[in-house]
Amino acid sequence: MDNVYIHGAGMTRFGRLQQSLSELFFQACEGAIFESGIEDYDCIFVGAMNPEEFEGEANLASIITDLIGMVPTPAMRIETASATGAAIFQVAAMAVASGVYNRVLVLAGEKMTGVETIEATRILAEVISKNERNYGASMPALAALVTRRYMYDFGMNSKDLALVAVKNHFNASFNPYAHFRSRVSLEKVLTSKIIASPLRIFDCGPISDGAAAVVLSNEPSEVKLIGMGHGTDYLGVSYRESLTSFTSSVVAAKKAYKMAGIEPRDVDFAEIHDAFTSFEIIGSEDCGFFPEGHGYRALRDGKTQLDGSFPINPSGGLKARGHPVGASGLAQLVEIFWQLQGKCKERQVKGRVGLAQSIGGFATNNFVTILQRV
Amino acid sequence: MDNVYIHGAGMTRFGRLQQSLSELFFQACEGAIFESGIEDYDCIFVGAMNPEEFEGEANLASIITDLIGMVPTPAMRIETASATGAAIFQVAAMAVASGVYNRVLVLAGEKMTGVETIEATRILAEVISKNERNYGASMPALAALVTRRYMYDFGMNSKDLALVAVKNHFNASFNPYAHFRSRVSLEKVLTSKIIASPLRIFDCGPISDGAAAVVLSNEPSEVKLIGMGHGTDYLGVSYRESLTSFTSSVVAAKKAYKMAGIEPRDVDFAEIHDAFTSFEIIGSEDCGFFPEGHGYRALRDGKTQLDGSFPINPSGGLKARGHPVGASGLAQLVEIFWQLQGKCKERQVKGRVGLAQSIGGFATNNFVTILQRV
Repeated sequence: MDNVYIHGAGMTRFGRLQQSLSELFFQACEGAIFESGIEDYDCIFVGAMNPEEFEGEANLASIITDLIGMVPTPAMRIETASATGAAIFQVAAMAVASGVYNRVLVLAGEKMTGVETIEATRILAEVISKNERNYGASMPALAALVTRRYMYDFGMNSKDLALVAVKNHFNASFNPYAHFRSRVSLEKVLTSKIIASPLRIFDCGPISDGAAAVVLSNEPSEVKLIGMGHGTDYLGVSYRESLTSFTSSVVAAKKAYKMAGIEPRDVDFAEIHDAFTSFEIIGSEDCGFFPEGHGYRALRDGKTQLDGSFPINPSGGLKARGHPVGASGLAQLVEIFWQLQGKCKERQVKGRVGLAQSIGGFATNNFVTILQRV
Repeated sequence: MDNVYIHGAGMTRFGRLQQSLSELFFQACEGAIFESGIEDYDCIFVGAMNPEEFEGEANLASIITDLIGMVPTPAMRIETASATGAAIFQVAAMAVASGVYNRVLVLAGEKMTGVETIEATRILAEVISKNERNYGASMPALAALVTRRYMYDFGMNSKDLALVAVKNHFNASFNPYAHFRSRVSLEKVLTSKIIASPLRIFDCGPISDGAAAVVLSNEPSEVKLIGMGHGTDYLGVSYRESLTSFTSSVVAAKKAYKMAGIEPRDVDFAEIHDAFTSFEIIGSEDCGFFPEGHGYRALRDGKTQLDGSFPINPSGGLKARGHPVGASGLAQLVEIFWQLQGKCKERQVKGRVGLAQSIGGFATNNFVTILQRV
């Protein structure tokens, strides 16, 4: 697979928005179409995690195609829980690489705030193993378990965790598309409401609305897809080999590096799925940027800041850019695309190779995707 | 795309079943794995239309991968309403053609009878344009509109319609996987309950549970994918160019023939999406087997019977084999695969090239796929 290029990207601002999912898709794809200058597409790939329950909408691919005036262009919908945006990018890339479609439009989004927060939380928890749900497992509860274990094994403390939130809110303050553009102090994070100990409200990604879009083609452009990988894990956390490393990420990263023919040290910056602050630290280790148990030390040393040796989540991450579940995986790639083109102004980082790691469900379905400036 | 072969297929019986969707997937994929002799897969493609609402299950791809013991193999879910089974086959084929994955397992299914029929009908109607739903449109109501127009334009009568049901129930009587194995007389069909005039209960596909599975690989086998196409149409039926021909099918068929380098006359038999009896007739015209307005005459003349010159729905079709919405598109391809291998006993038809046409939503997202015995 050596012929997939990105030609344009678009995004809505993430946040608590008035628009419907369809309207968000429309806005995101307008941006991508404008940037790419491509108006005719062979296929549209649409991603959303659960519009059926969030919005009472089914047949999403057809709705979008009609709305954006692209009938009778083929369109389909892909879903892998909260990694949907990454999945759809990888499917679209394979479609281009296969030669069946040459110019494709990739859209991913979610409208989550149309339902009450408690209902959104219930919908999100459906991705968890039914057994563990029956014992009261929720996403934050399981994330708390993982975080506690990491603290116990490697000596991380709550202040380290809080540094993820402080860093990502700082980065997002420069991102016009971010859900939260307000910076937060270490003290504010450390005194915020407990959600599931040791995780506080600032350790958890928000419930957001938003959409992202990308144009892929086999025609050369400035930014190329060089590697991608995908892995799964047992649904039940109790069956996993490790609590402090996600096998699905490790498998996905290995495949992506192999396809790209590079090593972790060849990557210049990354967008990591920080739905919970500890996930950024674990993700940075699972992708091989730091040894096991050293991710939080790199963070503590400032290495992952915007001006550090290896910036992580220059966009603000899921934590501060926001986390419309279906959109996040694609929004990460939009950020990398724009960073590689030098379009990110105050949050611009240096480098030629960017990596996105995306988590589906409670790390049951993870993706790694690597882009390079040509 | 010249390197995608089918290596094995499996199915559950369709019908009102006790098993959950996961259990149905398990059973279907056991069959496909056994037939193919392939045990290691690079990726699993899972299709279901709406397990979120039918079963309260999300994160389906991860659930299945765990259940069938294939963690950490990549797995994703594809959806295009009632054409999901066809969509997932085409996505999997592109994945193989791209070289990213060489051996893939394709699973499609739906569990519909876990909810009351009225709730299932509500879920199914979500695929219709919201505007038209607000005026009371349901799937049978819109199908009735289309059927009436076809009758008016081309002189078809209710007896012609009934012949589809009689033929397909007859075919299904030879299919051990069919929901209905009982034959029906013309009189029984013509005196059955009216659902939406002129459509009677025997003109409508049933609500079924079931799953189908297929193994694809780039390694040669007896049966090869030679053509595929996909098209969309306006969500609102009131915006369509024609009521008696589905643009999405016509577009999909043209693309599939072009890729295969063949004409309609080179096809030996077909599986056509007969969710309503008139859809089989319209589909047979949209795929170019008969001129516009002549499909019902071919049926009347016996051409589309098992022993006719161009058999349609030897499996019994959606009408009699059953219609678990996510599964149907893939079940059609399973039938063609088995037919091309000469495995279909009393319902065996002759020929080297078989075509499947699949309808998503109210013909908003249609697929045509062509297989050939090598």
